[in-house]
Amino acid sequence: MTPKIERFFAENQPDTPCLVVDLDIVAQNYQALCDELPGTEIFYAVKANPAEPVLALLRDLGSYFDAASIYEIEQCLALGITPDRLSFGHTVKKEAHIQRAFDVGIRQFAFDSIQELEKLSRAAPGASVYCRYLTPNGGADWPLSDKFGCHPDNVTDLLCNAADLGLVPSGVSFHVGSQQRNPTAWNTAISTAARIFSSVSDRGIELSLLNLGGGFPSHYRTPMCALPDYTDAVKHSLRHYFGDRSLRVIAEPGRYIPGDAGVIQSEVVLISRKSSNEVKRWVYLDVGKFGGLPEVLDEAIQYRIRTPHDGGATGPVVLAGPTCDEVDVIYDAAGYELPLGLSIGDRVEILSAGAYTASYASVGFNGFPPLKEYYI
Amino acid sequence: MTPKIERFFAENQPDTPCLVVDLDIVAQNYQALCDELPGTEIFYAVKANPAEPVLALLRDLGSYFDAASIYEIEQCLALGITPDRLSFGHTVKKEAHIQRAFDVGIRQFAFDSIQELEKLSRAAPGASVYCRYLTPNGGADWPLSDKFGCHPDNVTDLLCNAADLGLVPSGVSFHVGSQQRNPTAWNTAISTAARIFSSVSDRGIELSLLNLGGGFPSHYRTPMCALPDYTDAVKHSLRHYFGDRSLRVIAEPGRYIPGDAGVIQSEVVLISRKSSNEVKRWVYLDVGKFGGLPEVLDEAIQYRIRTPHDGGATGPVVLAGPTCDEVDVIYDAAGYELPLGLSIGDRVEILSAGAYTASYASVGFNGFPPLKEYYI
Repeated sequence: MTPKIERFFAENQPDTPCLVVDLDIVAQNYQALCDELPGTEIFYAVKANPAEPVLALLRDLGSYFDAASIYEIEQCLALGITPDRLSFGHTVKKEAHIQRAFDVGIRQFAFDSIQELEKLSRAAPGASVYCRYLTPNGGADWPLSDKFGCHPDNVTDLLCNAADLGLVPSGVSFHVGSQQRNPTAWNTAISTAARIFSSVSDRGIELSLLNLGGGFPSHYRTPMCALPDYTDAVKHSLRHYFGDRSLRVIAEPGRYIPGDAGVIQSEVVLISRKSSNEVKRWVYLDVGKFGGLPEVLDEAIQYRIRTPHDGGATGPVVLAGPTCDEVDVIYDAAGYELPLGLSIGDRVEILSAGAYTASYASVGFNGFPPLKEYYI
Repeated sequence: MTPKIERFFAENQPDTPCLVVDLDIVAQNYQALCDELPGTEIFYAVKANPAEPVLALLRDLGSYFDAASIYEIEQCLALGITPDRLSFGHTVKKEAHIQRAFDVGIRQFAFDSIQELEKLSRAAPGASVYCRYLTPNGGADWPLSDKFGCHPDNVTDLLCNAADLGLVPSGVSFHVGSQQRNPTAWNTAISTAARIFSSVSDRGIELSLLNLGGGFPSHYRTPMCALPDYTDAVKHSLRHYFGDRSLRVIAEPGRYIPGDAGVIQSEVVLISRKSSNEVKRWVYLDVGKFGGLPEVLDEAIQYRIRTPHDGGATGPVVLAGPTCDEVDVIYDAAGYELPLGLSIGDRVEILSAGAYTASYASVGFNGFPPLKEYYI
């Protein structure tokens, strides 16, 4: 919560649910990353919050952009971001979309399979490509799968294949997992990168690009280390494994940049008990899993919640969303407690909700409109 | 897949992903329920598929409608559906929304708590209310929680409270769980209803409404019983527990009506392996969890999938959606196999996808537009 957002709520009393993002915080977070990772190019992961005011602000601050789809690329171009500042960072793309991206000037693409390389060689001949590999994700709060990245042992062959196919194998990327709690999580992945650089060099190809991915956290319920703890660990690993080798290092922060800048305000629709002798209250909000809080799936991301009664005695709650879907429960097992003084009609705030919220909202499940957004 | 949908795909070659719904099947399913449950009023659960062509068709066939929000109510009214054909079936509503519904003529509301009754008594004085209670959900494929419904032991008191508050306590409702596989699942809930009718009668109030909820299934991967197996079991339980007592019975089918009428066509974006010696292929589609298939959460709803190579040799796959979110995996543990002949660029069809798909799609996560819909 920032004074600017506080003032916005007080002066405007907007209809709930709504997301309010303080653009000053977005700018501060971007600048902090630039300061702590000097020489590293920041490719903002558009998917974290693709709102135009966020993109325009970062454009003016000199950011680069990591796009997950041709639609995000076209959105950035429409905002005057030049194609050399864009990377098509998704390893899985329709060939027609690669073609459209190449046609508008995109020259940097991710991949993690020979099949994707073949598409790239046809639709984006001569483009720069980097290979994403799997790396352990322990310590990350947002659950990860093996969906993206190939086994590290396959990377060298794939980069050589890229060269054979007329592409420019520029380097490698990985992702340590979203909302990564462990500052040293990048270390293993960077050591793997160094091994790959060396084995590719043995095959006569010099790589130049190391893409650190994202993973830098926002402030949810579990206290996090400060940004320098993360960036110091990353710089230490880079020095340790790459020494003073000339290297183009890029990072793709998503959540970190707008996450802490946003607050969702929501109204308490009902507080009830399932039977008269139960202690646990059910608290129903007007925002839930299908209206902008998808990351509460499996109670993975646990937001801080502010109420008008904070400081008073609390009791256990199940927190639920507004739709008729019984799956639309926000927190149960996570053991949230809320003030006993909380009443129907109260407004509560879900903090650090600036990333991975509004763009995920459903078009209209149960008829509820998508999350309203204000950028101030 | 119906001949009409088949023809539509052949003639139009629409961009994928898209949902095509055969309205003849919607009408047939509605009629089948009317035929098998004579005397039961069918309140279509709008949330299952709120597309205008579906609502207009059911309007013309004489259906009633169960609305989950004031927005669904307003949508129905705009289509010329009169308020006496609408029920506000959500037990958790903003008081301002109850007021809006009451103002436009809605007189039938669900509740499951004293707190909701108090709102109803202020915002909808004199309206008919029915109380939803919890009932076991074993056999249901779409996971359920205790989110809606109170303990059955509390219902009698609550219905008496309703009368004290100037409302008309009309009856009870329950939900046996969505995509219910067990035809006898309604039996326990109906026996509970009979007990409640009797204990409320002892307090001097005669109930008249029994709301059977939804739960009638669509055809996914696990073969289901035929509709008459369900309706015969329901009718048997009604006779057994209510005899020939005069009763207004209503049902709130959602999934059953449009589910089997819809097909999602999707393109295979990539087929790859995570390492060269792995048997399991990753198959990436252009539709996934955030683009219209939310019910694959926890692999709960397992759709039948049709490919151009059906009949040939198959092998194990992980099926994944198009977004950069690693959580956007469709099926892994469920053990799907797809033809070894499947190729990048092939179109596959996800069958029985007419319910709980398009309206759930995100507004634009990763920039992908919402699921395109055709009603034919």
